[in-house]
Amino acid sequence: MGNDEMSKLFAEWNKTELESYLIEITSTILAKKDDQGEEGHVVDYVLDKTGMKGTGRWTVQEAAEQSVAAPTIAAALDARYLSGRKNERVAAEKILEGPEMSQLSVDKKQIIEDLQAALYCSKVSSYAQGLAIIKAASDKNGWDVDLGLCARMWRGGCIIRAQLLKGIAEAVGKDANLANLMVDSGFAADLNSRQMAWRRVVTLGIANGIAVPSTAASLSYYDQYRRANLPANLIQSQRDFFGGHTYERTDKPGVFHTLWDTSHKALDDVAGRTAGEV
Amino acid sequence: MGNDEMSKLFAEWNKTELESYLIEITSTILAKKDDQGEEGHVVDYVLDKTGMKGTGRWTVQEAAEQSVAAPTIAAALDARYLSGRKNERVAAEKILEGPEMSQLSVDKKQIIEDLQAALYCSKVSSYAQGLAIIKAASDKNGWDVDLGLCARMWRGGCIIRAQLLKGIAEAVGKDANLANLMVDSGFAADLNSRQMAWRRVVTLGIANGIAVPSTAASLSYYDQYRRANLPANLIQSQRDFFGGHTYERTDKPGVFHTLWDTSHKALDDVAGRTAGEV
Repeated sequence: MGNDEMSKLFAEWNKTELESYLIEITSTILAKKDDQGEEGHVVDYVLDKTGMKGTGRWTVQEAAEQSVAAPTIAAALDARYLSGRKNERVAAEKILEGPEMSQLSVDKKQIIEDLQAALYCSKVSSYAQGLAIIKAASDKNGWDVDLGLCARMWRGGCIIRAQLLKGIAEAVGKDANLANLMVDSGFAADLNSRQMAWRRVVTLGIANGIAVPSTAASLSYYDQYRRANLPANLIQSQRDFFGGHTYERTDKPGVFHTLWDTSHKALDDVAGRTAGEV
Repeated sequence: MGNDEMSKLFAEWNKTELESYLIEITSTILAKKDDQGEEGHVVDYVLDKTGMKGTGRWTVQEAAEQSVAAPTIAAALDARYLSGRKNERVAAEKILEGPEMSQLSVDKKQIIEDLQAALYCSKVSSYAQGLAIIKAASDKNGWDVDLGLCARMWRGGCIIRAQLLKGIAEAVGKDANLANLMVDSGFAADLNSRQMAWRRVVTLGIANGIAVPSTAASLSYYDQYRRANLPANLIQSQRDFFGGHTYERTDKPGVFHTLWDTSHKALDDVAGRTAGEV
């Protein structure tokens, strides 16, 4: 798709559940002819180095501080950092290989529908992470933040103003103890009906060597959050092996340490142990 | 594969380029029979909640501080945070859906070979990120860190000791100005010959609803780093649209601001502008 066709698509998307300021201005940007006397569109002359003012940086740092997973936001920040290493990337392109681009056997209309669904799901996942950071900080500091009011605040001049925020305000407004935005019944239904399209977009990109870091990270978040059981039992076993960090069991209460091999000795007081370094 | 079969595989892998302390102890862990009188293996009774002592947290925070992308490390940290939300995950599993598990049409031997290749590539990508953090901090603070010596330090009692670190020490030892571990000729050849297997593992996981956050993030890093041109030109255009943050062009030097729509006014002194908030 050329810039003008993409501009029209973003204008169409701006009439759907994706309606937002950023979708709207993207449509305008893609249509803009060059203003420095060259052929074609401005966007094709803009250097692919993204600046930042620090908001992404401290959001990621604060998420880590609050022990909250924010992979979409982290991936977006990292994409900015990698964009800044233009000279390294130009050199690396001559050295590191990708796949042969496949002749995509999927339908163009289908891809566009899938992209719309994947973008919507990724936005929900991203907002779920952002709200979780705010909630964690609020709980820890006793701020008693009203997340519904918070979502309603991002309007007017705010660059993240979006149709989606109305639904978010309603979801968190009707259940102040909602564990995560994704498990609200409305958003869960949206995600469930779109998750296959989301997977198709991410796998199509990865198979063809096109990085989709934030879309992929959003889906990783979803796929981890919806699992009662994760392979973290192996990590925790490793931690007990190399650092005597102990573990809990699934079948009985208490704190345990295993003598994994002959080099291990019993810990005298497992319960009182705060463990060594990782 | 059952635990005993996986234990044998890790023991085999420990004779290859994957040889490391963590691979070795994983083999031992998987083979360990329960020590609390139950049937089967200890690992299956270990609760999937992973603790941490803060090393992952501050690594991610410091990477952000140094403007260095560290998506593998961030994904691993986030996986720990998500593992900690056990109760939420148990509830979410009843609400959020994944794909029907496909009958995998790929060959078991092929999957195992692909997994070995994907794990090796992800390790290289992860070490590339970690070394980039240390290099950035060293450059910024004038520490003059010898990265080759640094890589050789992680041996003996260190839990990340690995065969791979010998190759890393050689690569950074022979070129102190190496921009990134991945573009060393030896590691580049390794990655190029394995990148298709890496893609197969990640897409197989995502298509089947199995989160592979760190493996996927490692590949995202590779696929972004090897691109001379990234879509960051659109992001930078958006930043100029909503915040007048200006941009550079690909065809001439200077700092530019576009009057994207009728609401925009010329910035009097574009070159002197340090831009507003994101």
